[in-house]
Amino acid sequence: MIDPLAWPPPPADDQTDHVTDQQPVQLRVAMAQVDTRVGDLRGNADLVVRWTARAAAEQAHLVVFPEMTLTGYPPEDLVLRESFAHASERTLVELAADLADQGLGGIAVVVGYLAHTRGAGPAPVDEPPTDDRPGDANPRRGAPRNGAALLFGGEVVARYYKRHLPNYGVFDEARYFVPGTELPVVRLHGVDIALTVCEDLWVEGGPCGVAGRAGVDLVVSPNASPYERAKDDLRLPLVRRRAAEARATILYCNQVGGQDELVFDGDSMAVAADGTLLARSPQFVEHLATVDLDIDPSSAPDRAEGRIGPMTVTRHVVSDEPVPPFARRPATVAEPLGDTEEVWRALVLGLRDFIDKNGMPSVVLGMSGGIDSALVAAIAVDALGPDRVHGVGLPSKWSSEHSLSDAEDSAARLGMHYSVVPIAPMVEAYEQAVELSGVAAENLQARVRGTLLMGLSNQHGHLLLATSNKSEVAVGYSTLYGDAAGGFAPIKDVPKTLVWELARWRNAWARERGETEPIPQNSIDKPPSAELAPGQQDSDSLPAYEVLDAVIADYVDRDLGLAQLLERGHDPEVVARVLRLVDGAEFKRRQSAPGTKISLKAFGRDRRLPITNRWRETLPTVREGAEQ
Amino acid sequence: MIDPLAWPPPPADDQTDHVTDQQPVQLRVAMAQVDTRVGDLRGNADLVVRWTARAAAEQAHLVVFPEMTLTGYPPEDLVLRESFAHASERTLVELAADLADQGLGGIAVVVGYLAHTRGAGPAPVDEPPTDDRPGDANPRRGAPRNGAALLFGGEVVARYYKRHLPNYGVFDEARYFVPGTELPVVRLHGVDIALTVCEDLWVEGGPCGVAGRAGVDLVVSPNASPYERAKDDLRLPLVRRRAAEARATILYCNQVGGQDELVFDGDSMAVAADGTLLARSPQFVEHLATVDLDIDPSSAPDRAEGRIGPMTVTRHVVSDEPVPPFARRPATVAEPLGDTEEVWRALVLGLRDFIDKNGMPSVVLGMSGGIDSALVAAIAVDALGPDRVHGVGLPSKWSSEHSLSDAEDSAARLGMHYSVVPIAPMVEAYEQAVELSGVAAENLQARVRGTLLMGLSNQHGHLLLATSNKSEVAVGYSTLYGDAAGGFAPIKDVPKTLVWELARWRNAWARERGETEPIPQNSIDKPPSAELAPGQQDSDSLPAYEVLDAVIADYVDRDLGLAQLLERGHDPEVVARVLRLVDGAEFKRRQSAPGTKISLKAFGRDRRLPITNRWRETLPTVREGAEQ
Repeated sequence: MIDPLAWPPPPADDQTDHVTDQQPVQLRVAMAQVDTRVGDLRGNADLVVRWTARAAAEQAHLVVFPEMTLTGYPPEDLVLRESFAHASERTLVELAADLADQGLGGIAVVVGYLAHTRGAGPAPVDEPPTDDRPGDANPRRGAPRNGAALLFGGEVVARYYKRHLPNYGVFDEARYFVPGTELPVVRLHGVDIALTVCEDLWVEGGPCGVAGRAGVDLVVSPNASPYERAKDDLRLPLVRRRAAEARATILYCNQVGGQDELVFDGDSMAVAADGTLLARSPQFVEHLATVDLDIDPSSAPDRAEGRIGPMTVTRHVVSDEPVPPFARRPATVAEPLGDTEEVWRALVLGLRDFIDKNGMPSVVLGMSGGIDSALVAAIAVDALGPDRVHGVGLPSKWSSEHSLSDAEDSAARLGMHYSVVPIAPMVEAYEQAVELSGVAAENLQARVRGTLLMGLSNQHGHLLLATSNKSEVAVGYSTLYGDAAGGFAPIKDVPKTLVWELARWRNAWARERGETEPIPQNSIDKPPSAELAPGQQDSDSLPAYEVLDAVIADYVDRDLGLAQLLERGHDPEVVARVLRLVDGAEFKRRQSAPGTKISLKAFGRDRRLPITNRWRETLPTVREGAEQ
Repeated sequence: MIDPLAWPPPPADDQTDHVTDQQPVQLRVAMAQVDTRVGDLRGNADLVVRWTARAAAEQAHLVVFPEMTLTGYPPEDLVLRESFAHASERTLVELAADLADQGLGGIAVVVGYLAHTRGAGPAPVDEPPTDDRPGDANPRRGAPRNGAALLFGGEVVARYYKRHLPNYGVFDEARYFVPGTELPVVRLHGVDIALTVCEDLWVEGGPCGVAGRAGVDLVVSPNASPYERAKDDLRLPLVRRRAAEARATILYCNQVGGQDELVFDGDSMAVAADGTLLARSPQFVEHLATVDLDIDPSSAPDRAEGRIGPMTVTRHVVSDEPVPPFARRPATVAEPLGDTEEVWRALVLGLRDFIDKNGMPSVVLGMSGGIDSALVAAIAVDALGPDRVHGVGLPSKWSSEHSLSDAEDSAARLGMHYSVVPIAPMVEAYEQAVELSGVAAENLQARVRGTLLMGLSNQHGHLLLATSNKSEVAVGYSTLYGDAAGGFAPIKDVPKTLVWELARWRNAWARERGETEPIPQNSIDKPPSAELAPGQQDSDSLPAYEVLDAVIADYVDRDLGLAQLLERGHDPEVVARVLRLVDGAEFKRRQSAPGTKISLKAFGRDRRLPITNRWRETLPTVREGAEQ
């Protein structure tokens, strides 16, 4: 045995008897890129059984599911409820038995779950002892962990607890989980398989590094990695670096589907130790990928256990015997989608899953003839079909002729339901009761529309879609309880310039297929206007959207300060104005509907600013006499 | 020297020369329990100068300010903005100079601030290395820390970085800060003072334990500890345990004031090593407490530095020379408030600071004659004075006679503005435009009121107050964009039973002072009703509020599962119904206005549940054949 703590390990020709005895072995592995439901332990376990049966039909020996398969991800504060954590543990054990009962005990299944190891394991870093904190105020009694288990033959063979807990952006895992310290390695048909979870893969010298030092043949990595624009471009190089560090193939299985603000794109992949991309799943669809591996055990000369670096490696044996030789089949290596199509599919899936997982039969939205509502209607029809989408034209006395005709055209192109309710009688009733002028009168029109749409929502069971885009949400150009009203805001994270790009892309996509363009060209081409006052246009009070969106990307998404914004060449007056608007609109955003995150930083859980906040960006000044 | 790593330390008679030389020394210390503003670096620095001048006028030698004095607390994602962090560092250095310029360089000042030590210090636990994460996605480039600094003679003498970072309940400090590893001890006039911050005090064997092993005379503890009912009962025993562990007096200085969902009650205190309460500040007011200490250096026989337990102790000397003897003055030892008065003052201060810190001139609210709006009006008048509070009666065709007369009585008792706008004309206009029945028709009335009130808000610059209580918010008995509309919801965390208790308490308090009772007895006594349908009463569709609130306290505040709820004796049918209502109302709560947290767990940042969530509490079942 070589010293497992030595780093770098000795060269491969320093082989032990264990290894020189062995010949290359085969294994067929599968990644089940499924769409789970948060909180649906029983339903998710059933999903695992169904997809394991599919993997078994493909003669796979191992199938890997996404992170926290049984609970769905992210389960948020459900993690802190002991009844839920105990039910997750119970469901895991029952699932192992169910798989065996259904003749699936002979395939190894890796599933994610919420582990609850009361009293076990070390106290987490920075966790006050329970006897000193008031009991009820301490959410970490017991030890919730982000677990992955390998099931085989009706049993839970090994349990891994995620070591690296992301706690930035939309992630709050330090709130929920105690980090793991053990790395289990399971020998399946002569192949040594290390278990890891998601963020572990992002850390150099983390569990993949420990696996490389311990000696393994395969690393499985269940993931719940939310979609962001162009994130898929980062994943492959990342998985390659970790495969090289682990000196083993990595199976990266990501979930797919929408969950409130997040959408997951899948993009599961298998990458060999030398960086070869062996398989890649298509984005935004459920998919079973199988990969035939030829494992050369001599590539990992040593098989160590015990303390290695920061973790303790444990070894578990299901079977030493390799599987009989079988004929290799080619694996799917999907091309990632283009950037605009990717965003479109993210928005469609994010909306569809929100509506369907919440059991809503249909949606309703106000149609103004403008590009935002036309785009949301097209997304909704792609997500739900035209029969579940209800548009309402709500013209006021300031509405232009084309606003109604473009809205009608939009609905007709999509084949969705459409009706018209003029708002003047309601607006007049308010104006006779109280005096409202200026912005108050403009907002009134938007709120009459919001009230009408919510009435239709309550009456018919539709979920109301808000049509605000990210540029409007950023600068507060929407009316609280008016056009901001709704249960979901599909394009909340889409800047106006990308709204136009998506509309053009979707129309071109239809043209390529010989289909009707779903979005009226007039809605794309005309100058944007809220039409809340005579002749009003967005450009009266906002910079051009190309200019505005560039400032928003730097200030909101990248969190740059004033000096950095000016360094990047933004106009000082535009910056001053935009920052004032963004800072002043926090109270509105706090009450806005959730919408699918597609950017680096979405409004919502991703960006947590106080409402009460006196900080305004200023240039640093050097004061006379003060030290710097 | 004794071994600083030995624990327990040797008995006190094992004294070194250093100590036997010394005689008891005096020091006058002060705690400035101030109300800071988040983001207002310059304003908060000015506040420090003003209160330091007051402390100097009292001949204090040291004054301690609350946690993150310069930034306010919690600054949330402002911490991640480098321009803000740099400005905080700059403000600290400028403050030290300003104090000296104004003749205050001779008093030691401990202030909290946001530290930004780029590249310094160890990487935090679980922090992926920056080269592996996409740069912009990693909020922890650089090293933001929760700092406390001791200023003297125009200089920053020592900087401490908070070691224990709370990341539960409303706290997200693992998102923001890197934990500190050094414990600076500053000798001021012969007295050794250790710096700590807030959560450090809650941890046995934390910095106070290290201070005890190192040997110090005094521990300062700047805090930002949010109010919760009866939390003050926990603080004194906690500070006593830590003072015993530190073998030194602890100065616990907490901030006061409202910040969005949180209100801070102050309750600053000084506790001697033997547990004697030397001083305690009154709750919910700014206050300067001075305490005259007699330090017996022989009580800490050793004065160690270097590595002690998990931290490195550093020693800094301002002056070895004790101050000349002075005549002792008695310190204030305030009695904590009674439980009901405490809640009242929390609600008043939470509302006042939200309105004033956001620069709102006035508030408006709908007055129904019911207890909720009567209570909110009374809180608003106590917070802002009657001239800044505008009530509007909004009767419908279902409103009872007494609803209008009780609302008028309420406004008259409070001396606030009051007007009446009947809603029938607007309701009829909608009903002629679209068919709305049942719940849709009920919600319409609430939304017409919401739209009218938001119109008045926009027209006159009032902030609209929502009047929903915690019981309603829990079960979803409020109308989105209707009675739930508003910029702040003062009693959002107050269960209905406590609403009545507060009303009775406030009337009794007025009676004791010979003042008009602010809340009509009829509003307290009559059965609660939303009056959205003929003869409607809350008890038609909800259990009695005593029963409902008990279930909410166990399910929401204590996160109990079904089995535990039944064990605690709740009626199974009531539990089933209440849980279904609470689980189904998450989408409404996500869009609700912030309100002051007073309970163990408030809706908002304190309780983060997914909207899309299939989990429903069930009793665990033992399945045939399945392992348990």
